[in-house]
Amino acid sequence: MQENYQKKTLGILGGGQLGRMVIQSAINYNIDIHILDPDPNAPCKSIAHDFQQGSLTDFDTVYAFGKSCDIITIEIENVNTEALQQLANEGKEVFPQPHLIKLIQDKRQQKQFYKDNNIPTADFVLTDDRDAVIQHAEFLPAVNKLGKDGYDGRGVQVLRSQADLEKAFDAPGLLEKLIDFDKELAVIVARNKRGELIAYPAVECAFHPTANLVEFLFAPASVNEKIEQKAKEIAIQVIESLDLIGILAVELFVTKSGEILVNEIAPRPHNSGHHTIEANFTSQFEQHLRAVMNMPLGNTELRTPAAMVNLLGEEGHSGEALVEGLDQALSERGVYVHLYGKKITKPFRKMGHATVLDENVDMLKERAMRIKEIIKIKTES
Amino acid sequence: MQENYQKKTLGILGGGQLGRMVIQSAINYNIDIHILDPDPNAPCKSIAHDFQQGSLTDFDTVYAFGKSCDIITIEIENVNTEALQQLANEGKEVFPQPHLIKLIQDKRQQKQFYKDNNIPTADFVLTDDRDAVIQHAEFLPAVNKLGKDGYDGRGVQVLRSQADLEKAFDAPGLLEKLIDFDKELAVIVARNKRGELIAYPAVECAFHPTANLVEFLFAPASVNEKIEQKAKEIAIQVIESLDLIGILAVELFVTKSGEILVNEIAPRPHNSGHHTIEANFTSQFEQHLRAVMNMPLGNTELRTPAAMVNLLGEEGHSGEALVEGLDQALSERGVYVHLYGKKITKPFRKMGHATVLDENVDMLKERAMRIKEIIKIKTES
Repeated sequence: MQENYQKKTLGILGGGQLGRMVIQSAINYNIDIHILDPDPNAPCKSIAHDFQQGSLTDFDTVYAFGKSCDIITIEIENVNTEALQQLANEGKEVFPQPHLIKLIQDKRQQKQFYKDNNIPTADFVLTDDRDAVIQHAEFLPAVNKLGKDGYDGRGVQVLRSQADLEKAFDAPGLLEKLIDFDKELAVIVARNKRGELIAYPAVECAFHPTANLVEFLFAPASVNEKIEQKAKEIAIQVIESLDLIGILAVELFVTKSGEILVNEIAPRPHNSGHHTIEANFTSQFEQHLRAVMNMPLGNTELRTPAAMVNLLGEEGHSGEALVEGLDQALSERGVYVHLYGKKITKPFRKMGHATVLDENVDMLKERAMRIKEIIKIKTES
Repeated sequence: MQENYQKKTLGILGGGQLGRMVIQSAINYNIDIHILDPDPNAPCKSIAHDFQQGSLTDFDTVYAFGKSCDIITIEIENVNTEALQQLANEGKEVFPQPHLIKLIQDKRQQKQFYKDNNIPTADFVLTDDRDAVIQHAEFLPAVNKLGKDGYDGRGVQVLRSQADLEKAFDAPGLLEKLIDFDKELAVIVARNKRGELIAYPAVECAFHPTANLVEFLFAPASVNEKIEQKAKEIAIQVIESLDLIGILAVELFVTKSGEILVNEIAPRPHNSGHHTIEANFTSQFEQHLRAVMNMPLGNTELRTPAAMVNLLGEEGHSGEALVEGLDQALSERGVYVHLYGKKITKPFRKMGHATVLDENVDMLKERAMRIKEIIKIKTES
């Protein structure tokens, strides 16, 4: 078989922490990575083979960047998909495929896709504006989502009662039944052009109570074999229905009656897979590389149970970041800290993450919570 | 405790594969690494925060490079230690300490140091030239080593009989009794300024029959607990006797009578520790960082048994490298390939390594040998 990925240049739209961890993996294969990001101090800046500062949403910028690469991928969905489609039309390899990025960018299309493909998901109605939301008071309590541009908890809100309706988004979005879930799971699946398909074991996500982003993650998920199997099957159903090449993180609800519903998907490395760097045979970042470059997919087994905690900027601190507690955390067996190279912190900004490995699953939660208490991202006082 | 390593710049003399793997680790801590190397295409080139092309043995070059860093370390011993001493005298942190690099550069001083500190090692005699070697025919069969500038098998030869004496090195060196060993082990130890000291489990090295460099490595070593313990004790004795800060790889012979003798030492990440990236809780590259930057040392336990195989340039191939067999190797569970970013291959050049993880120790040798047969570093035909 022709292993021509060795001579190919991979372009990534986005130079944040996800791209940074992809580059750390790519170093092992001598793969040159070019990065496009609007931030001149993006986390990938100093380690990319080539770094271009520019807009991810401007057609000409994305097109010109893509022309200089052989294979193009993303680490963020909010990119100019028309430019990517043009590049694909001209013969560049673009994975995930541009039309799928476009579909996933719009939560309305995403939901409709689940429905059209018999993928289990919470009941919903598409809403064009605030008035349309108000027309559907029968959905309450419900989750109101903006169609586009939501990220890390922005563009999503819970509407519990009539009184909440007036804060509904006054733009195209959707309203979905609030699921009284028992657990939130995530399953990452990967698929390459040569037809291989593989799923990671399900992980369990615990969300931050107010910031609406993953606070802790546990692998394995504490669910029975049947739920685990069903979650994987649904994730595989999604990637196959999309016919997507690359990796796909599928966030799932497990309802109190044991039903599994797809919440959202992300066609790129995802916060729910950070632990795979140390905990699994193949990290999600390497798997992303393997999938988009048509390398063989890697084994996804969990080597050691793990917990992951996001290291978020402390409330009340904005400015040049200082990490407290690293010494104490790094003294522990099986603690791995990943800082993202962001000079400036602000409340809830994702500044890094820590993974805890422990053969004893019962210790993971306690240890992860302790690490979160130990490591604080502040500013110099 | 002041964790001021976060704001420090680390300079590394040498930009080869060892520095490259240190940088991969340092990315997790936002540590900026500056590299000095004479090769404009050194493996660290594209991922170092700052890369300076220049001689490692020239006083002015090394001194000027060191002045721009806060902490200075090495990934190769053949550097200008006078410049490093000057930097240390002026208050820079230089680890390992310059006088120890100087001592280790000279195999004669190294051997004398073992003797002076009651560290078990093969009997030897220092020889100033070929005539001096010829005077010590009673040492035969013996190993003849050049005092300085040996590396990866160069500067070392076996003299079996009188007839071999005429090929003895005609320069300052040493002659040591050829040890009829049962096994070769290596133990990596680490020590930081705050007084922590830790040893890795012993590994077993299998050398290439002609090229005199490590071909395979197995962890754990197949030795009994007593030998394992004794090997660690000797490695700790060496680093403590030297009062060295950093990491130290200690190569050891286990004789057929169960004696353990120190062969050679290297005060830097070492080929015998490459498997630690995937196999141990803390890799040797991260441990090196932790030791020289006075971070807490990391746990050294083996997570999964491992074998490592060096990927050397094939004989008969010199020129632009092409890696064969990557696809097949990467399809296997627990196989990790690290390519070093060297464009040009030549026979026996270290172009990369592969690590195989397997819970079943008995499978490791067979799997490692198969990987060596699968992956070939050639040139385009």
